Amino acid sequence: MTAFEARIIRRMDQRVSLITLGVSDYARAKAFYEAMGWRCALDLEETAFFKANGSVLVLWSRAKLAEDSGIADDGSPWGGIALAHNVRSRDEVHDVIEQARRNGATISREPAETFYGGYAGVFRDLDGHAWEVAFNPGFSLDAEGNLVLPEG
Amino acid sequence: MTAFEARIIRRMDQRVSLITLGVSDYARAKAFYEAMGWRCALDLEETAFFKANGSVLVLWSRAKLAEDSGIADDGSPWGGIALAHNVRSRDEVHDVIEQARRNGATISREPAETFYGGYAGVFRDLDGHAWEVAFNPGFSLDAEGNLVLPEG
Repeated sequence: MTAFEARIIRRMDQRVSLITLGVSDYARAKAFYEAMGWRCALDLEETAFFKANGSVLVLWSRAKLAEDSGIADDGSPWGGIALAHNVRSRDEVHDVIEQARRNGATISREPAETFYGGYAGVFRDLDGHAWEVAFNPGFSLDAEGNLVLPEG
Repeated sequence: MTAFEARIIRRMDQRVSLITLGVSDYARAKAFYEAMGWRCALDLEETAFFKANGSVLVLWSRAKLAEDSGIADDGSPWGGIALAHNVRSRDEVHDVIEQARRNGATISREPAETFYGGYAGVFRDLDGHAWEVAFNPGFSLDAEGNLVLPEG
């Protein structure tokens, strides 16, 4: 038995430590999130760390992120990932979408009713990263703002 | 003053409610994350919700996600986002990377020392979504597994 086989195999815990958004212009990207109301906890060598709810949102050079990850980057603005920011009312959906628009984001979905009975809009930040801003009456938010999933 | 202007403009809270990974084959994607040790809290109309630390990781049809978000999808496997899963030791980096490899993920960065003095590997899931698995001695994990950022 090799040393590797002898180790207890741990399973991957259910957590996302960091969500890193690759950006083309670091100062511009950081200014956008600050204008949205986020406060950077740590700014280190052109890497901005914003504490979210458990996870940390990070802004970093897309070129460096690709190289560091061993990824051949074709420069596409979207790779099939969307972040969602759930809020407590339809009005809040409008507020966040309008704030994003004022700060230069593209609104790819204007606020409207959703197929699941909610109300949502989608903005894409200055690098194209997609954020759905959603009010979902089926998913309440707890005191920390985390989603409470209904019983399956 | 319009009704819109009269509303108090709320700033965007620092939270990521959902991280949705668009997938081409729902059953295959769900089986992959289950094989990695994740437990699905809710499986509703081919949408899998996995509770993470504050955020919820969601698997959903990439085509539906693009359409619902108003995004023209060019099918690129990467749009400049990476998730990170931080662990407490170099051995854990190996364990998670090997588990991902056994389950069909591509290892785009074999575990190795990092520029920040840590140790990390990167796997890409069956749809190409990138996960860095990292041990970073500068970022400890609290009891819930959340990163503790050093003082800026």
